[in-house]
Amino acid sequence: MLGVRCLLRSVRFCSSAPFPKHKPSAKLSVRDALGAQNASGERIKIQGWIRSVRSQKEVLFLHVNDGSSLESLQVVADSGLDSRELNFGSSVEVQGQLIKSPSKRQNVELKAEKIKVIGNCDAKDFPIKYKERHPLEYLRQYPHFRCRTNVLGSILRIRSEATAAIHSFFKDSGFVHIHTPIITSNDSEGAGELFQLEPSGKLKVPEENFFNVPAFLTVSGQLHLEVMSGAFTQVFTFGPTFRAENSQSRRHLAEFYMIEAEISFVDSLQDLMQVIEELFKATTMMVLSKCPEDVELCHKFIAPGQKDRLEHMLKNNFLIISYTEAVEILKQASQNFTFTPETRSLCVAEAGVQWCKHGSLQIPPPRLSSFLPTQSPNYLGLQWGADLRTEHEKYLVKHCGNIPVFVINYPLTLKPFYMRDNEDGPQHTVAAVDLLVPGVGELFGGGLREERYHFLEERLARYLDLRRFGSVPHGGFGMGFERYLQCILGVDNIKDVIPFPRFPHSCLL
Amino acid sequence: MLGVRCLLRSVRFCSSAPFPKHKPSAKLSVRDALGAQNASGERIKIQGWIRSVRSQKEVLFLHVNDGSSLESLQVVADSGLDSRELNFGSSVEVQGQLIKSPSKRQNVELKAEKIKVIGNCDAKDFPIKYKERHPLEYLRQYPHFRCRTNVLGSILRIRSEATAAIHSFFKDSGFVHIHTPIITSNDSEGAGELFQLEPSGKLKVPEENFFNVPAFLTVSGQLHLEVMSGAFTQVFTFGPTFRAENSQSRRHLAEFYMIEAEISFVDSLQDLMQVIEELFKATTMMVLSKCPEDVELCHKFIAPGQKDRLEHMLKNNFLIISYTEAVEILKQASQNFTFTPETRSLCVAEAGVQWCKHGSLQIPPPRLSSFLPTQSPNYLGLQWGADLRTEHEKYLVKHCGNIPVFVINYPLTLKPFYMRDNEDGPQHTVAAVDLLVPGVGELFGGGLREERYHFLEERLARYLDLRRFGSVPHGGFGMGFERYLQCILGVDNIKDVIPFPRFPHSCLL
Repeated sequence: MLGVRCLLRSVRFCSSAPFPKHKPSAKLSVRDALGAQNASGERIKIQGWIRSVRSQKEVLFLHVNDGSSLESLQVVADSGLDSRELNFGSSVEVQGQLIKSPSKRQNVELKAEKIKVIGNCDAKDFPIKYKERHPLEYLRQYPHFRCRTNVLGSILRIRSEATAAIHSFFKDSGFVHIHTPIITSNDSEGAGELFQLEPSGKLKVPEENFFNVPAFLTVSGQLHLEVMSGAFTQVFTFGPTFRAENSQSRRHLAEFYMIEAEISFVDSLQDLMQVIEELFKATTMMVLSKCPEDVELCHKFIAPGQKDRLEHMLKNNFLIISYTEAVEILKQASQNFTFTPETRSLCVAEAGVQWCKHGSLQIPPPRLSSFLPTQSPNYLGLQWGADLRTEHEKYLVKHCGNIPVFVINYPLTLKPFYMRDNEDGPQHTVAAVDLLVPGVGELFGGGLREERYHFLEERLARYLDLRRFGSVPHGGFGMGFERYLQCILGVDNIKDVIPFPRFPHSCLL
Repeated sequence: MLGVRCLLRSVRFCSSAPFPKHKPSAKLSVRDALGAQNASGERIKIQGWIRSVRSQKEVLFLHVNDGSSLESLQVVADSGLDSRELNFGSSVEVQGQLIKSPSKRQNVELKAEKIKVIGNCDAKDFPIKYKERHPLEYLRQYPHFRCRTNVLGSILRIRSEATAAIHSFFKDSGFVHIHTPIITSNDSEGAGELFQLEPSGKLKVPEENFFNVPAFLTVSGQLHLEVMSGAFTQVFTFGPTFRAENSQSRRHLAEFYMIEAEISFVDSLQDLMQVIEELFKATTMMVLSKCPEDVELCHKFIAPGQKDRLEHMLKNNFLIISYTEAVEILKQASQNFTFTPETRSLCVAEAGVQWCKHGSLQIPPPRLSSFLPTQSPNYLGLQWGADLRTEHEKYLVKHCGNIPVFVINYPLTLKPFYMRDNEDGPQHTVAAVDLLVPGVGELFGGGLREERYHFLEERLARYLDLRRFGSVPHGGFGMGFERYLQCILGVDNIKDVIPFPRFPHSCLL
């Protein structure tokens, strides 16, 4: 009767369930130990990594950190407990009594009775050095160790809190979370910037596609969210997106996270801008309240002055200007731009759609004539509307008093085909909106989507099917999560706000 | 002074901020309207899609759904408001008074004063038909419309709630959320099953890698979580993972979601199993409490009897048996298995590591002799330990009374190199654990990781670096999110619990 024995044994095995919450000597996280009110000698156990060692004649001071908070717990031990393995970086388990600290620098400390070194750390070989403040560039070489520094620890805790805050914001507002796909057969936007994929070893046989069609890594979950916004009036996604751009800039990654939302029955940009402003402010307030020490560390050591700049953003209403106004402001600026502010750009026909190249083909007027491929069948001439450059965006934000500024109503020719036609004058615009923020530039991009069947009829066929059956006005936006973190923390390089950065020529680990 | 004008105008433009929460005629979600206590004629506006139309002589009944809940809101209108566009699937905006319903079938109804058709839906062409219960297989052809059915609406709301519940569980337990990378240069596990990627159009030039090294889509975030568990004692990730397996099974997808966790300073499987059991039960209880109607719909129409089965799982402690016991149970079973339960399997050497092929190379003894490639330099012979097959897993769960069962201490040869050596008798095992659940089979897989440097020394070099500096005992696990949803809802095919399924030969949208 093995079966019964098995069950009996299992039950016996399980008989301690519900599992005990604490072992005999209560195990605490450093965070919980630090937060203990009225510590008076409770026996506890902590586990973590040594952040500092100070050995005096009769007393040994350790600081132990387990990643639960920026602050470490001070351990005070009889010098008899010292050992050659109590090094910076070694992992230890300390048992002892939690007491009120006589020093003003901490509330509590752990009077050690037993210190066990779990894993030694050879300081000579360990690339993170004791008491040294390593530059962020240096740390980037060690994606598997940099999380052990104060600054990356703080940034990653903040990233985790911001992730939770964003989920909460949308959930509390009644949005349904959708996992939009990573692999997609869509290549509608900027085909040159996509990653294509096939089973390993099959890359050389492109005619035999695993999915029957060429498959790419997503550049945006928008289309899939739009599908869902035909059934749920408020949806959002928060996931990785990809660009195969050969950019080494401090603002670009090959793999980054986007928060995207679509809202049905929205018929004004004002409604969208309201959600964007609330999302930015609510998330930031939540992060500030959940991990103030971590944010303070960033503001203090990475970006002095950022604290005031952030407060300034939070307490003011975001501004709104139109694209046309923005260009006027730029034209009247005393500053010399590398790219002269212009309202015209070079337009081409591509895959049957008239299009003005974003950025890459936009040429400043003096050099334009030499560039014009007038003989090309794709060439359509100059049209109204030219993209704003990073330097322009920066100027606009500064001009507006370093308050985030919404730029609305962009030229039709500059934005994707699905943006809603404003049906306005000769300078034809669409209901698109970008949010420009200090230090980062464009943080959000969005707009109303064209829900009118006949406006789209001559455009993409697959997109049309979504407009045939109970189409509704809707709009949405996307926010780059890493840029958001850069914006609130003042971190200059995007590679420092993501655990494992991927960019051209680099895929460490 | 355009600058000042801009600012003034902007301020004027923004002067309505803080934005009004409600427009004049309060817009409500269907869910909020249905939940209104003591409705007594408040003027409201709702927007959504028509789910049913019933036209009587003087009265018109509509049911309008906006995706906020399974239940629709009944709209009662004078038949004069009828129009040819009030079709099943059309989107509408209805203004009127919210009143207590005279019928027992609903608490409230909306007495319409104005009905505006926003987007018509031609029933003839719309693949979702009025009052028809479409098979799930039929709906899979329309990933862009199936979300408008009751059943997919419910599943996607449940998926959203389960996502939130999982984030909450880990956050409340003090875990730090980590975005482990999607693109990775690791190909350590089962190289044949990976997707490789390159910028579109560059697939034929594999010598010029975008990242300088071949890059793949992740099959697991474990290694990256282990990196982080060297600084944070509790970490988790919840993201997409990929397999390029050519499987059309109802349990496999090319893109699916995994919840993975790593916990430092864990030195027993018991601690891991506690977290797994708590995660499963807490998440499920949360889902049941947040969307009971949606779960009920699945249990009623998709999987009759599932409600009782799930309650049975929730109220019992999960069982625990060892791998050796499991094989004994299988050997004594009266059932005939396609694959005879065995404790030996074919082992090969691969990339310098001894390995027993998971599944694919495991051959039942009768056919083994004819298969043995004894002349192959990779062939190592028969070793103790053979993987459990799906049919075996199912039998074990049934044998254990349809309670989830942990199988622990697997043969060393069956599990990856990083599993912790139990240093036991001639039948050498590692501290690995799988959780088998009714209807699905393996739901979780995990174990203690080998933290001892010298045990790993002859294995992968890159893994070793993590053990040199303050190594700690740790363990972790992964759960397939879609399988979890299948398990609690009783949904047979994994393609029905993910918004946009990807599998061989299929990448719709």
